[in-house]
Amino acid sequence: MNKLTLKSLLTETRKGFEDLLYLAMDRRIRLAVTGLNQAGKTVFITSLIHQLLMGARLGGLPFFRVVADGRFQGAKTVLQSSMDIPAFRYDQFIESLKGHPAQWPRATDGLSEIRLAIRFRPGGLLHTRFKSTHTVYLDIIDYPGEWLLDLPLLGQSFNDWSNEIFALCKTPPRETLSRPWLTYLRQLQPLQPAEEGVLRQASRLFTDFLLACKREPFGLNYLQPGRFLIPGDLKDAPLLTFCPMPATERLPEPGSLAQVMAQRFESYKELVVWRFYQQHFSNFDRQIVLVDLLKGLNRGPDHFADMSRSLKSILKNFDYGRSSLLSRLLQPRIDRLLFVATKSDHVAANQHNNLERLLRRIVMDSVNEAAFNGVAVETMAISSIVSTETVVKEYEGKRLSFVRGCPKGRSEEVLLFPGEIPEKIPRPEEWHTERFNFLEFEPGSPMDDGDGRLNHYRLDLVLDFLLGDKLA
Amino acid sequence: MNKLTLKSLLTETRKGFEDLLYLAMDRRIRLAVTGLNQAGKTVFITSLIHQLLMGARLGGLPFFRVVADGRFQGAKTVLQSSMDIPAFRYDQFIESLKGHPAQWPRATDGLSEIRLAIRFRPGGLLHTRFKSTHTVYLDIIDYPGEWLLDLPLLGQSFNDWSNEIFALCKTPPRETLSRPWLTYLRQLQPLQPAEEGVLRQASRLFTDFLLACKREPFGLNYLQPGRFLIPGDLKDAPLLTFCPMPATERLPEPGSLAQVMAQRFESYKELVVWRFYQQHFSNFDRQIVLVDLLKGLNRGPDHFADMSRSLKSILKNFDYGRSSLLSRLLQPRIDRLLFVATKSDHVAANQHNNLERLLRRIVMDSVNEAAFNGVAVETMAISSIVSTETVVKEYEGKRLSFVRGCPKGRSEEVLLFPGEIPEKIPRPEEWHTERFNFLEFEPGSPMDDGDGRLNHYRLDLVLDFLLGDKLA
Repeated sequence: MNKLTLKSLLTETRKGFEDLLYLAMDRRIRLAVTGLNQAGKTVFITSLIHQLLMGARLGGLPFFRVVADGRFQGAKTVLQSSMDIPAFRYDQFIESLKGHPAQWPRATDGLSEIRLAIRFRPGGLLHTRFKSTHTVYLDIIDYPGEWLLDLPLLGQSFNDWSNEIFALCKTPPRETLSRPWLTYLRQLQPLQPAEEGVLRQASRLFTDFLLACKREPFGLNYLQPGRFLIPGDLKDAPLLTFCPMPATERLPEPGSLAQVMAQRFESYKELVVWRFYQQHFSNFDRQIVLVDLLKGLNRGPDHFADMSRSLKSILKNFDYGRSSLLSRLLQPRIDRLLFVATKSDHVAANQHNNLERLLRRIVMDSVNEAAFNGVAVETMAISSIVSTETVVKEYEGKRLSFVRGCPKGRSEEVLLFPGEIPEKIPRPEEWHTERFNFLEFEPGSPMDDGDGRLNHYRLDLVLDFLLGDKLA
Repeated sequence: MNKLTLKSLLTETRKGFEDLLYLAMDRRIRLAVTGLNQAGKTVFITSLIHQLLMGARLGGLPFFRVVADGRFQGAKTVLQSSMDIPAFRYDQFIESLKGHPAQWPRATDGLSEIRLAIRFRPGGLLHTRFKSTHTVYLDIIDYPGEWLLDLPLLGQSFNDWSNEIFALCKTPPRETLSRPWLTYLRQLQPLQPAEEGVLRQASRLFTDFLLACKREPFGLNYLQPGRFLIPGDLKDAPLLTFCPMPATERLPEPGSLAQVMAQRFESYKELVVWRFYQQHFSNFDRQIVLVDLLKGLNRGPDHFADMSRSLKSILKNFDYGRSSLLSRLLQPRIDRLLFVATKSDHVAANQHNNLERLLRRIVMDSVNEAAFNGVAVETMAISSIVSTETVVKEYEGKRLSFVRGCPKGRSEEVLLFPGEIPEKIPRPEEWHTERFNFLEFEPGSPMDDGDGRLNHYRLDLVLDFLLGDKLA
């Protein structure tokens, strides 16, 4: 036993030492990517890597400073450092985008990671003279948005959390969707002895409710605990077998339903959320959060409100200004945080600014920017891969911007008028049926014919914001 | 951060304290159940629990001493203690066995756990006078046989292991099945720089080889690393992306194919095998290993040899007598180890003794029993659930034992003569085509009409060996 543990200690120490060395030399960047429900995370990361791998040889990243300055020497994928984290399968994903016909890659389900080595010449007079070349290791970590939305649970008691859920269940669509679960819950006495069968049934109905919220046509995001939706190897474990309970007048006795539920909630926080925070989140340097605002508009005001709630809840993790328990607990070292509205190619080019402005409103409105002590927060509207073309045409004497592309599930291109993006969050009376109906598209021919690079909108700005200072 | 860790520490301490208390009072038994490929682990545990739950009320466990003595007061399932281990879903499994028609429950895939509380009156004069009742908590832990077969890796270097695999690949059926992998491997230079694409392809071909060995018609068991076959949440992680490599003359440099493969093998040992040992295996009190010897005989001599190799490899984990690195590393506290040949009802009752004797030969032959310092090793032939009936008939003037049951995939009962079980391992020349062709059966009507209890063979002996001394 001694030999093995000593050995593993040495391995750990050595690994830790190398990482520390890179860190001290500012040569290792851990970029975390997550997104709300179906925001296009896999496609985003695939295209980002693709742009970096192609970056040295071709144009197409005019606003990525290190490339524009001619200092970018090249990038390649190298062996990842974490042995027990699944690889982000860039090789498979780029393959399906290069196919004929090109296909969207299948979305990933849990945590995954990929490492790139980026070689560049530093700017500045001294470096220019000596033509020295530096290497930076970029780890891109892909993880489900649900895990990020779980972090605030660390600052909540079981009663706080239960009350929040019960309050949310008073508004549509949760009001209807939660009915089977709440009906069952009303038959239970919080102080009755806990039995596994009852815990399971209550938990199953609660999980069904969460799954119904997540599914079409609702597509909600503010759904905790996140692992109830993606259990992986923890399926059927007690820490995924509980649900919110009404508060009791007296402290529930050990072994009572309410006490066991609360105990499992605490175990979930400790063994799932806290572990994710310690092992992963606290080591991230940069965080990007992807949002599909267009789908948000399609789905109407309830969904939109839920999306806003999710984004604000995410922001709270970074809000050092407030002296909440959470902000004291969680001091991520993330110093740049980027919110991105994806799939901007689904609307005409003249709407992209509005898309970005709308996202900015949602993210920034309720938050005092000064509160983000040391964290630069930015918003952008991008397209990881451009699958349409904007066509300007005369219509009844006016110039209108149309979009040409192949809608999802169809094989022919069509020309359509997707309509306009509001630059402000629509007021309740402004939402009316069919106001928003943005379509999804097939990838089409995403490669530029000339240089074999995936077309994108503004990934260069994304790269410059996230990595620029590290490649200066 | 302080609050959370302090709290978790307290929770851990309290939990640890309770467990320690039960342990000190001899009131907690961790019974581990595993089996080779499709030995019927789920059905075995389901029936074992069922017998215990019914035990107090009904007969049917005549050789389980505590029941026979009338001291058994009852058993019930209670909340399990491990929060992050999936529950063994007895409720679902017994349901499918009680259905009309009864169906075999679906096999489980990873680790799972269930806890029973057993109440009994201790024997002995003093206790009898005071009529005191004791409670024992029985944790049944179900885990894949592949994990147990992985333990010996802890004592092997990458070169040892590679050489063992290469040697095995010289014998059928591995010789043919390993060809695509070995052909690819021969194109590689062990000292070439490691690239993820090559690592992946080599590892994929090796994994395909392992999967082909496991599948019908081969059904081999001696297949490491076990997680290559059941990756769960570790799918695509580097520690599951390697394969054996030929030894190199000089020490491979960091970053070479051979060095990276070896590094990943070490990570697998450390983060998968060693973790399983520490977190689970080292806490087991009793271990039962299930084997389907009948399928072993059907599949012929290569399979049978592989099964024997697997069982001997398992035994080595307990072989304190030898002064190997492994025996010094691993000192499990398991003090009773039971090997069981399952599905004995697939042959006539007069063959059960031979089945048990055959198993004993395989397990005991090569091992000096005295070496098992402090571990009681036993073999039995049982049937977790009886799905056939033995019928004795005259055939050409002789009495022959037939079996009546509904063969798997059919809906009508048939009467058949399954043949005889050899009591010794057949010599090479004794295996000939069609000598053994034991059928699998549908569960039929597994409940006894009289008392609604699942019929079994010798589960009472199993219970008495595994638990008897703790309920004395």
